[in-house]
Amino acid sequence: MQTLSTTRAHGGIQGVYKHVATSTACEMTFAVFVPPEATDKPCPVLWYLSGLTCTHENVMDKGEYRQMAAQKGIIIVCPDTSPRGEGVPNEEDNWQFGSGAGFYLDATEAPYEANYNMYSYVVDELPKLIGEHFNADMSRQSIMGHSMGGHGAMTIALKNPERFKSCSAFAPICRPSEASWSKPSFEKYLGADKANWRVFDTVDLISDGACFSPILVDQGDVDEWKDEGCRPQALADVVEGTDIDLTLNIQAGYDHYYPFVSSFMYKHIEWHADKLS
Amino acid sequence: MQTLSTTRAHGGIQGVYKHVATSTACEMTFAVFVPPEATDKPCPVLWYLSGLTCTHENVMDKGEYRQMAAQKGIIIVCPDTSPRGEGVPNEEDNWQFGSGAGFYLDATEAPYEANYNMYSYVVDELPKLIGEHFNADMSRQSIMGHSMGGHGAMTIALKNPERFKSCSAFAPICRPSEASWSKPSFEKYLGADKANWRVFDTVDLISDGACFSPILVDQGDVDEWKDEGCRPQALADVVEGTDIDLTLNIQAGYDHYYPFVSSFMYKHIEWHADKLS
Repeated sequence: MQTLSTTRAHGGIQGVYKHVATSTACEMTFAVFVPPEATDKPCPVLWYLSGLTCTHENVMDKGEYRQMAAQKGIIIVCPDTSPRGEGVPNEEDNWQFGSGAGFYLDATEAPYEANYNMYSYVVDELPKLIGEHFNADMSRQSIMGHSMGGHGAMTIALKNPERFKSCSAFAPICRPSEASWSKPSFEKYLGADKANWRVFDTVDLISDGACFSPILVDQGDVDEWKDEGCRPQALADVVEGTDIDLTLNIQAGYDHYYPFVSSFMYKHIEWHADKLS
Repeated sequence: MQTLSTTRAHGGIQGVYKHVATSTACEMTFAVFVPPEATDKPCPVLWYLSGLTCTHENVMDKGEYRQMAAQKGIIIVCPDTSPRGEGVPNEEDNWQFGSGAGFYLDATEAPYEANYNMYSYVVDELPKLIGEHFNADMSRQSIMGHSMGGHGAMTIALKNPERFKSCSAFAPICRPSEASWSKPSFEKYLGADKANWRVFDTVDLISDGACFSPILVDQGDVDEWKDEGCRPQALADVVEGTDIDLTLNIQAGYDHYYPFVSSFMYKHIEWHADKLS
């Protein structure tokens, strides 16, 4: 692991690091905020998964997570959203596929299956690295994400319920197998047989019996992507009658982007801190 | 005034606007955050002046001012840092002069005197527009800024002590007439006679008897620009023996940029709110 930069912020350290990842067969960059409390003792880890077109950097600049993370003594890890670089297949003029659009799944189709394994990267490889290099209590982890990253956070929590204490999302893509935003990408990464898509789709996972609690979702009601891309109602519907403890807040007047995310970031981190303590 | 965008954030509205300005003889863009409280009653105004190379956008993205401004019911106005556009003289490869480097002064030298009048723009023209278009209580104003904008905030407060309730700065350029960062620009905007520079230099203004209180300054101690560009010690020295109530905090481990600014933004807004209430 190589340190690209470290900057003091809110009493802690905002760092950016890179390493050669096996699961994605390329160099991966990620951001970690370490709160002041980690000087004295291991701190819990809260994962933040970013949305389409983003890198680790967008939330680091605009997410406003450091104040509350510093106050609550939580390490925040922000991975990239896809493999990148020379030799990684991409579609440069398609923002919904390739670089910036890994969808937190493991691809099965050529030529993507060698690199597009963001599920394994986020679930297996990066946690190992974080546990080795930071003063992290890996027995206390939670996960959150925005848009495509909200899809990532929910599917990863549903598939690894023992790992996380809590899961939250800002305007998540709840039904990627059906949304025009994500369906073409699922087909390229996972092939034409939709049976293989179900384990990377929140609504399908819950339909098929996966369970995780608690889940907190905030969704803006003037989000241009709400009904087609995010589909919060599909999440509300599928959760009904299950044991999943879902809090779904529809926020009046909010759109899809970082002013929305940062407006509710404090509340999400405070909520996770309660579950992690 | 034309609205370029409005976005709900922290319960208020973050807007971006433009207008044709007389003082700078060009179109000017600026950002205004209006807290939820302004729906019901006029709110006080806190000016934020940005640093070299910035536009209204940097602090809007990275400054983390909205949470506390919303909580305290304060309108935040973020002007651009210089005139811009076709017909405005510039030096494209010089980040310390021209576009992004207006230094909040009124230029006297050709060809800059027609446009580079950011002092008049920020002190006279823009406040009039704000008072007309927003639910602002213009009898309650305070001012803050970062780096070149910290210089702007302090010189403007010292020259208009009746206007502002409080003034604060993050790593301000305290002695622009002497710093290698700003001296060449002062010469181009104001001419060779340094006597004419004194009214745009915080240390000189205070030496010449200008007085403003209270002033709050935070300065990182690993800021690469501290000793040559910012010169906080020159400010501390010149204030000694005057009636100026200066709080100068040297912050261990902090550098010059937005992770530093955002780390202390909450505290600055809280401090201004107390003076504005």
